[in-house]
Amino acid sequence: MSKEKVVLAYSGGLDTTFCALFLSKELGHEVHAVMVDTGGYTAEELEAIKNKALSLGIASYKCIHITDEFYDKCIKYLIMGNVLKNNTYPLSVSAERVFQAIAIAQYAKEMQADAIAHGSTGAGNDQVRFDLVFNTIAPNARIITPIRDFKFAREYEIDFLKKHGVDFEAKKVTYSLNVGIWGTSVGGKETLSSHGQLPEEAYPTPCTATQPLDVELTFEKGELKAIDGKAYANPVEAIHALNAIAGPYGIGRDIHVGDTIIGIKGRVGFEAAAPYLIIKAHHLLEKHTLTKWQQFIKTQLADWYGTLLHEGQYLDPTLRNIEAFFESSQKYVSGKVFITLHPHYFQLNGIESEHDLMSSKFGAYGEENKSWSGDDVRGFAKILGNQLSIFQKVNGVEF
Amino acid sequence: MSKEKVVLAYSGGLDTTFCALFLSKELGHEVHAVMVDTGGYTAEELEAIKNKALSLGIASYKCIHITDEFYDKCIKYLIMGNVLKNNTYPLSVSAERVFQAIAIAQYAKEMQADAIAHGSTGAGNDQVRFDLVFNTIAPNARIITPIRDFKFAREYEIDFLKKHGVDFEAKKVTYSLNVGIWGTSVGGKETLSSHGQLPEEAYPTPCTATQPLDVELTFEKGELKAIDGKAYANPVEAIHALNAIAGPYGIGRDIHVGDTIIGIKGRVGFEAAAPYLIIKAHHLLEKHTLTKWQQFIKTQLADWYGTLLHEGQYLDPTLRNIEAFFESSQKYVSGKVFITLHPHYFQLNGIESEHDLMSSKFGAYGEENKSWSGDDVRGFAKILGNQLSIFQKVNGVEF
Amino acid sequence: MSKEKVVLAYSGGLDTTFCALFLSKELGHEVHAVMVDTGGYTAEELEAIKNKALSLGIASYKCIHITDEFYDKCIKYLIMGNVLKNNTYPLSVSAERVFQAIAIAQYAKEMQADAIAHGSTGAGNDQVRFDLVFNTIAPNARIITPIRDFKFAREYEIDFLKKHGVDFEAKKVTYSLNVGIWGTSVGGKETLSSHGQLPEEAYPTPCTATQPLDVELTFEKGELKAIDGKAYANPVEAIHALNAIAGPYGIGRDIHVGDTIIGIKGRVGFEAAAPYLIIKAHHLLEKHTLTKWQQFIKTQLADWYGTLLHEGQYLDPTLRNIEAFFESSQKYVSGKVFITLHPHYFQLNGIESEHDLMSSKFGAYGEENKSWSGDDVRGFAKILGNQLSIFQKVNGVEF
Amino acid sequence: MSKEKVVLAYSGGLDTTFCALFLSKELGHEVHAVMVDTGGYTAEELEAIKNKALSLGIASYKCIHITDEFYDKCIKYLIMGNVLKNNTYPLSVSAERVFQAIAIAQYAKEMQADAIAHGSTGAGNDQVRFDLVFNTIAPNARIITPIRDFKFAREYEIDFLKKHGVDFEAKKVTYSLNVGIWGTSVGGKETLSSHGQLPEEAYPTPCTATQPLDVELTFEKGELKAIDGKAYANPVEAIHALNAIAGPYGIGRDIHVGDTIIGIKGRVGFEAAAPYLIIKAHHLLEKHTLTKWQQFIKTQLADWYGTLLHEGQYLDPTLRNIEAFFESSQKYVSGKVFITLHPHYFQLNGIESEHDLMSSKFGAYGEENKSWSGDDVRGFAKILGNQLSIFQKVNGVEF
Repeated sequence: MSKEKVVLAYSGGLDTTFCALFLSKELGHEVHAVMVDTGGYTAEELEAIKNKALSLGIASYKCIHITDEFYDKCIKYLIMGNVLKNNTYPLSVSAERVFQAIAIAQYAKEMQADAIAHGSTGAGNDQVRFDLVFNTIAPNARIITPIRDFKFAREYEIDFLKKHGVDFEAKKVTYSLNVGIWGTSVGGKETLSSHGQLPEEAYPTPCTATQPLDVELTFEKGELKAIDGKAYANPVEAIHALNAIAGPYGIGRDIHVGDTIIGIKGRVGFEAAAPYLIIKAHHLLEKHTLTKWQQFIKTQLADWYGTLLHEGQYLDPTLRNIEAFFESSQKYVSGKVFITLHPHYFQLNGIESEHDLMSSKFGAYGEENKSWSGDDVRGFAKILGNQLSIFQKVNGVEF
Repeated sequence: MSKEKVVLAYSGGLDTTFCALFLSKELGHEVHAVMVDTGGYTAEELEAIKNKALSLGIASYKCIHITDEFYDKCIKYLIMGNVLKNNTYPLSVSAERVFQAIAIAQYAKEMQADAIAHGSTGAGNDQVRFDLVFNTIAPNARIITPIRDFKFAREYEIDFLKKHGVDFEAKKVTYSLNVGIWGTSVGGKETLSSHGQLPEEAYPTPCTATQPLDVELTFEKGELKAIDGKAYANPVEAIHALNAIAGPYGIGRDIHVGDTIIGIKGRVGFEAAAPYLIIKAHHLLEKHTLTKWQQFIKTQLADWYGTLLHEGQYLDPTLRNIEAFFESSQKYVSGKVFITLHPHYFQLNGIESEHDLMSSKFGAYGEENKSWSGDDVRGFAKILGNQLSIFQKVNGVEF
Repeated sequence: MSKEKVVLAYSGGLDTTFCALFLSKELGHEVHAVMVDTGGYTAEELEAIKNKALSLGIASYKCIHITDEFYDKCIKYLIMGNVLKNNTYPLSVSAERVFQAIAIAQYAKEMQADAIAHGSTGAGNDQVRFDLVFNTIAPNARIITPIRDFKFAREYEIDFLKKHGVDFEAKKVTYSLNVGIWGTSVGGKETLSSHGQLPEEAYPTPCTATQPLDVELTFEKGELKAIDGKAYANPVEAIHALNAIAGPYGIGRDIHVGDTIIGIKGRVGFEAAAPYLIIKAHHLLEKHTLTKWQQFIKTQLADWYGTLLHEGQYLDPTLRNIEAFFESSQKYVSGKVFITLHPHYFQLNGIESEHDLMSSKFGAYGEENKSWSGDDVRGFAKILGNQLSIFQKVNGVEF
Repeated sequence: MSKEKVVLAYSGGLDTTFCALFLSKELGHEVHAVMVDTGGYTAEELEAIKNKALSLGIASYKCIHITDEFYDKCIKYLIMGNVLKNNTYPLSVSAERVFQAIAIAQYAKEMQADAIAHGSTGAGNDQVRFDLVFNTIAPNARIITPIRDFKFAREYEIDFLKKHGVDFEAKKVTYSLNVGIWGTSVGGKETLSSHGQLPEEAYPTPCTATQPLDVELTFEKGELKAIDGKAYANPVEAIHALNAIAGPYGIGRDIHVGDTIIGIKGRVGFEAAAPYLIIKAHHLLEKHTLTKWQQFIKTQLADWYGTLLHEGQYLDPTLRNIEAFFESSQKYVSGKVFITLHPHYFQLNGIESEHDLMSSKFGAYGEENKSWSGDDVRGFAKILGNQLSIFQKVNGVEF
């Protein structure tokens, strides 16, 4: 029997390194490792991952770069929707994982792979995201999950690697990180129980800034196009640039408490300076440029978008429909947002937009104006309260 | 013709002081001033307001104390719903104004008043809230609004008062405040346009704290019952106590950009240390104790609650129905929340609750556990993705 | 002083005929009557209305034909959203009136009219729709509403017309009709109180059919494109054709009980054979071609769309955003729907679509299939119930 | 090894009869059959089921009667919420199955059973509902599902029974029925594909009525309390009585197309005369007695309620919270609803209620009234349109 051709979702970490060797050496598969770059790594880091992979003696290694696609098909909509899961988490990992899964499944189809392997455990969200996407896009490839199926211990994995001549950095890190363009998750120790704050050193980007800093973000139709007047043709670069500015302010850190797809609760820390600033600035701009009902309904749809995306349902056409709504809603969400960064917090100082509905030309709040009279409001309140008045007349007032 | 009996919504400010005299001296009405205390004033301040009122030579003055009722019928639900309008504003003034209007309307009915007067201008939300509630509860009393109808200028009012022997503090304040138990609004200058941050001195409570402080809040069924282990029989006292602790940290300050009931956009600053901390702590406790769908649906209802309350529709029975939902949802929202205050920001460190659904007894996120197997999740992901798989098979994959 | 140039929303009915004369003869305005055809009239009827108008001696008469535009910008979305207000009413009049108002306002701007007049009373929805749209699109034209302002009685209007040589058909009809392409409203007598069914003769299209009839509707991306295999290039013609087929079956009649924009409740009968059939058939097709969440969320958006449209808020950009969602959701809503008409009711017999997600290829309900196993479902149910299990373990079971 | 004690969910049908014998004779378990009566059977039918069960030589048989509890904890809320899944299906089977599962799980706990068995196949909803509830309430009992696990064919089951001396009625029925108080499902042949209408004979209750019949339903706080003036102390009896009256009219029949919990689409016919009439009558009464926003929000919650119930999530506390909302909303939903039944359809003629908000005392739709003026509405429309006007001024009109 010929070897089974297995595409392996590869990240360079312990689990997937182990899987690479285990699948090839122990199970005798032809292993094709595939790394999907979503913007969390430098060119040097990617090179190192590649070299490590090639040293494992597997059939092939490939790195697929999808950061721009990830932005265009997902991050953009997370901004337009001001999506923060449970009002906190930018879905840093959730979003990224789905796009990695899609790229891997497509690669597996191209490769006519017999199977796709991933290194997820049986306790988290990622296993479901991978399974879901692989089953959908590459239904003919069976799914192999050694860690989930055999529950290998960390020590066993390290020993196995050593036995095959791979010396994996043995130091056990206190916190496991997932670095991505839309935020870095930080898990371990304090996040494993319901009570405990991550210490400063747990965050990869230290808060070193000490002086306030003014920042100006320019949006066009909901997308970040310039920072402090400097335009970026590629929004991905703008995000990176903003992270460089705001990261040292320790902004956008928090601990997310959420419901996993498999029904248990989980806590995870994160730092996401740029995502947080962009979303909050964008939201402020929307408060000035969208109508009341646009905001109200959009908020509800955004909650759906975040929830379905988090749960790996990105391929459900519902999300395409919500994206169409979002896109349509951003027609006039253009302008500048003024922010002041302070160590650990920031202030939104206001906006400037030719689409600002608060434009003083049409009557300022608290000031008299010319386009309507007190009598108009008197009539308005009268009619607006009609149903309440009738209700009270019919049913009596109760307080 | 006998004098018309007018109940006047009185606050001791320039506008209502002017109205008191204008209605009695100029229009010849029998003026009964009524002040509604919702917890924003000290006993001394209330005494001063009373004395000022009595000095105006009006028919009567009364102060109605409704802080406890305001908590029981409204603030409690704002906490249960984690209500922050536009994800920012605790509805400090919006909520208070409605309850003042109700008390005034009831008083007017008792007094068999011919009319109710309020000092609102024609440009804000309060006029609608007053009109709506008065029309509903006291439909037989006509509504008199001198400032709205005649657009008196501030200077005219001061002169008129002086002419009648009342020397109103002539200093023009830069910022107008509305002090309340659920937050103090701060409007003026920077908030009048779309761009501008309030300076430190605009906030009545200066940020004087310099050292971090740990605070522990204890909730029972969604209500704040203890601070740092000290129990409060009356939640109103707990709110005051928390404000005393957290106020000097400059927490809970922000600028709200919102849609007024009359359709224009407005900006208003506020400080609301206790409301902000209570809502954020309560929300965290809910993330641990509510199920996924409870949180999802409750969030949407809270948006409704906040919007309808903001727009003066408190008397719509819809709000009673949402309150019933909220009340029901809080059955297990009990436990402690641990917070660290820093100057200008705070950190939520975690919770402790016997109703914590993250209880490690039932499988921790990211760790293996015993109540289900990897195969169970494999099957779960298979079935969960069934519709997506079918959809893709039928319609083809498009990315 | 030169005459004021007034554009009058004209329908040929008593009220607008009266207004035409009253505005010109009594108030001395230069009256330009404008009729907006939204598909409810035959060419003969339109000709008669024109001739009547011209006989009144007013400055000008114009008929604007917008049926196709009305379909493209509104009816299409009412179908895509399966919009039935309060689960009953196709918004026949509500939708039409807004589009008439828009056309009139645009005409008034072109004409540089000083004022726009409409014949609405002060008790219904139409006055608000007209006012809202006129204020928005033609803010410089003042609005004149003789009937609302002067509360002219019907008899007075007839006398006034007679005095000016216009013999308006004096017979008082029991039911007032508003005939439109998206349904005909029928009001009067029984609908004026909360209890009472309209008699057969109140409906303009008598139920004369006696035998069942099979009908096949073909949709492409949510739009009706063929009936019984006969293709229609213009959906408006398809609607007319379906009305001709289904009208004699007395289908799509009901009494709508709804909330007017001004807060009172109202009842109105209607017949809307084609709209009802199209919406129900379209909805069935969606049940087969949309995913679960598409349907769930779309239903909620449709309720918004119907409510905002009903209340004259068509120009709110929120509706454009919802339309984008709808449009996106219809990508695969193509196929045939099979219906059997019976006198007074109809049966939906099923659908045929290449996008049918119930396709038997992927496992039929209640039958075993190959793409998943019993164990998969066992695991699915296990994980799906995880949170419930944890909740019950933590909080105890209560029934 | 002692025998395993197995509680078997028993219905008297082929599958559960087979399971009883298979579990005891083939697998050697101690089988305790339990039947849960939710109102779908007559006393005679229940007696026959009991005798059949006892003849199988199993360890014990028990029938648990929960119809009243089923009404109190579920049907009542389906009425209050006007719940029709996908706007069609009263959730006849979905609701019933969950309550049967709960009773069985509780019985298994009392019996300290080692396992619970059910006869579901691997293709439908019921397996998930049973598994979910059993896992939640009786987590220590393992779940046995012979039909799902071994995919026994119908013929095999009949042979097996015959071999053990049980002569199961061999006739293969064209349609499988599930008779329940909240509707009878009818599946088979035409419902197995996407196109096909059930023939008249497929429905257990033939449409024999030929003459119209007036029926009057009296509701108190949302619950059906009297029919044609005859009061029922127990709403369950009222439902039975209404079914007896309306069943012969062939009312409440339709085919539901829905999403199963396992993601495939399914079609199932049903007849549900009483549920359909009650829900539609109740809904009409609500249109007269609830405010606009009560109706709007309640509709959305009802969609949630139906979806979660359908998917077996009845034990999620979210449903308790929605029930609290529903209960609160029904305070004034009292009055009479007038209906005329015709063969195959019915007409709602109106309502009578002291809580009717359409009460003519407060201004009838389309008629002038005294509590507000035309000028009030003019002001109302002005202010209501403020945001649209500003939006158009800022962004320009586009049509």
